[in-house]
Amino acid sequence: MTATSAAGAGQQPRPPVVGMVGAGQLARMTAQAAISLGIEFRVLADTPSDSAAQVCANVVVGDYRSAADVLAFGAGCDVVTFDHEHVPGEHLTALAAASDVRPGGSALRFAQNKAVMREHLAGLGVRVPRYRPVSSMAEVAAFAAETGPAGRDGTGAGWPVVLKATSGGYDGKGVWLCADEAAAAQVLAHGIGLIAEEYVRFDRELAVLVARSPKGQGASYPVVQTVQEDGICREVIAPAPGLDPDLAVAAQHLGLRLAAELGVTGLLAVELFEVGGELVVNELAMRPHNSGHWTMDGAVTSQFEQHVRAILDLPLGSPAMTAPQAVMVNLLGGDDPDLYSRFVHVMAADPGVRVHLYGKQVRPGRKIGHVTVAGDDVGRLRERAWRAANFLSLGTEEPDGRVLP
Amino acid sequence: MTATSAAGAGQQPRPPVVGMVGAGQLARMTAQAAISLGIEFRVLADTPSDSAAQVCANVVVGDYRSAADVLAFGAGCDVVTFDHEHVPGEHLTALAAASDVRPGGSALRFAQNKAVMREHLAGLGVRVPRYRPVSSMAEVAAFAAETGPAGRDGTGAGWPVVLKATSGGYDGKGVWLCADEAAAAQVLAHGIGLIAEEYVRFDRELAVLVARSPKGQGASYPVVQTVQEDGICREVIAPAPGLDPDLAVAAQHLGLRLAAELGVTGLLAVELFEVGGELVVNELAMRPHNSGHWTMDGAVTSQFEQHVRAILDLPLGSPAMTAPQAVMVNLLGGDDPDLYSRFVHVMAADPGVRVHLYGKQVRPGRKIGHVTVAGDDVGRLRERAWRAANFLSLGTEEPDGRVLP
Repeated sequence: MTATSAAGAGQQPRPPVVGMVGAGQLARMTAQAAISLGIEFRVLADTPSDSAAQVCANVVVGDYRSAADVLAFGAGCDVVTFDHEHVPGEHLTALAAASDVRPGGSALRFAQNKAVMREHLAGLGVRVPRYRPVSSMAEVAAFAAETGPAGRDGTGAGWPVVLKATSGGYDGKGVWLCADEAAAAQVLAHGIGLIAEEYVRFDRELAVLVARSPKGQGASYPVVQTVQEDGICREVIAPAPGLDPDLAVAAQHLGLRLAAELGVTGLLAVELFEVGGELVVNELAMRPHNSGHWTMDGAVTSQFEQHVRAILDLPLGSPAMTAPQAVMVNLLGGDDPDLYSRFVHVMAADPGVRVHLYGKQVRPGRKIGHVTVAGDDVGRLRERAWRAANFLSLGTEEPDGRVLP
Repeated sequence: MTATSAAGAGQQPRPPVVGMVGAGQLARMTAQAAISLGIEFRVLADTPSDSAAQVCANVVVGDYRSAADVLAFGAGCDVVTFDHEHVPGEHLTALAAASDVRPGGSALRFAQNKAVMREHLAGLGVRVPRYRPVSSMAEVAAFAAETGPAGRDGTGAGWPVVLKATSGGYDGKGVWLCADEAAAAQVLAHGIGLIAEEYVRFDRELAVLVARSPKGQGASYPVVQTVQEDGICREVIAPAPGLDPDLAVAAQHLGLRLAAELGVTGLLAVELFEVGGELVVNELAMRPHNSGHWTMDGAVTSQFEQHVRAILDLPLGSPAMTAPQAVMVNLLGGDDPDLYSRFVHVMAADPGVRVHLYGKQVRPGRKIGHVTVAGDDVGRLRERAWRAANFLSLGTEEPDGRVLP
């Protein structure tokens, strides 16, 4: 029932209806991109004030955890896709009986369950950090002793250790870097499924974003460098500066191969560690991804349009860059909620900065938008992007006299 | 009441509400651009199936010719703007008592009435084609005899002559190129206000698009070449190939000067004839314009975002190009309404072509979308854009063996 559907007498053929479960900023920017494709785009929103619900013409308010709500939403759509990984697997199965679900449940479970994903990737011969499901302090401590740097940095046997929620998380967080047993105890106290993971001493973090269509067409964006802070993506540099061209090609091949092996339809983002000239897979996401926001202003086809093209089995767009370099910095909420007023200053200071706001209430540390600058000189681009982001987030250009963090 | 408005207790300051009267493709693409600015964007649509109404979260259905409808729409908006010039002047005056109307009625009347516009421009010393209000065949014939090429091309005394509706038009058309008295008689028979205008033997047509904010900031996009066919814009090349740099600067200065002289807020598009190295002003529009659609894929700031920034008195964005050249070709409806199916072929044939569909029912000759290609080699870009547009419009790549018209 995808693509152009049969039309009644006297009606013109109608383009397909795409529904996205979730109405955060990823759905908002997908809705924005879908406008150019002339299709109908709907979102399943938690509330009418969700980021995407504010701007989308077709909004259904419902609960993604409710089978009834998800199935009713899917019934009106030719293709259903997602702006997050949290729809229960049994709902995905039921949904697939009536609509095309892309990515499908069998692919999505690798993004939903970190233990399943790591086990599967290791089986494919892909390098992942050492990990183990844990449920007690004794297990965490044993894992630390076996895998950790063994006191190399003076923090004791094997610490720090990373704890990750197997699926979902707690209070919006799913990753905890634990310096010692006391920190691990706090995480264990949440009573959620966890894996322990070695703390990888990476040289830097990279990400590769690929698209794959049901027909099997693939396309890869250039490999980017990402900078995370407290588990939140702060900055993305495209392409990753100074990356060994062979390693870049290897990362793109890895992304395309994983998309095919896992049966992904739509986007697949692969977060990577670069360690001593090798690639270690950290995380997977099967949706538009923060590491690809720069494509809105720096690539021929944005990741949001690419995702829609892929799930509709349309030919993929060119992932080529439109400038030699692009830098994206996330806007995190600060203490002053009056974002719009500060916006004016940023626009006046640099007419070439692209700002994208998500329509969210400002809360400290919350992702409320992003800025992108494209051009030639990556040092200068970073300065411009950070200057704009600092001012928008904090109301001051250089919180401590430095522009760059 | 513009910009950030005061908020009630406990609420965060809200960004402004922009309302656009009219919900055609210009409003659709403005809604798309406004998403990134984090503001609320509303349209006043004739019907819920209007191009912009299909994709916009905030749609009011009403009649722009009704004072009550226009005033009710304006009451919810901080700033009101337009996707066409047809709102009656007295409604604009009433509207201005409650909202900021941009452009204002005193500027808009120059875009609404061709006789008023030409008289005013001539008074400013700007070169316009010779023209005269006419209401009878005797007046048209006299004008032709005085101003025409006097039989130079064998068509008799002074013909052809251009007749233009003073305001609005008839059956969607406002410009008629009349080869002889018989053709002019058909136009006179409509009984609408007309001006006769000399048929300018131009070397080519150009357009310059500028933005001006209430504070008086101005910004000009590069001067483009436009190709019209039967009074419909078919192709735009940015920047205009081989244009004398002095003439390009003169055109940009002219655009900025006219925006200031006429008190425009928002965009001003100036359609020009290039005649023997000089510029003649043909038409004005005070809104996003077909000659600026290429900016979505070829400039740092699209004309649609620029219009919103200008009417909100935000600092203007960079109008710089992101590629050396861009070519836009309009998609006109053909006989086969199944646009979406042909879309697939176009995407497969050229992953770098940007296609924008307007969600309109396909009717022969109707503007239903546009394609843009950006890059280096204007000849190759034109071929790619026309190939995509021909196939989308006609279902065949080269209707007569030629790619270019």
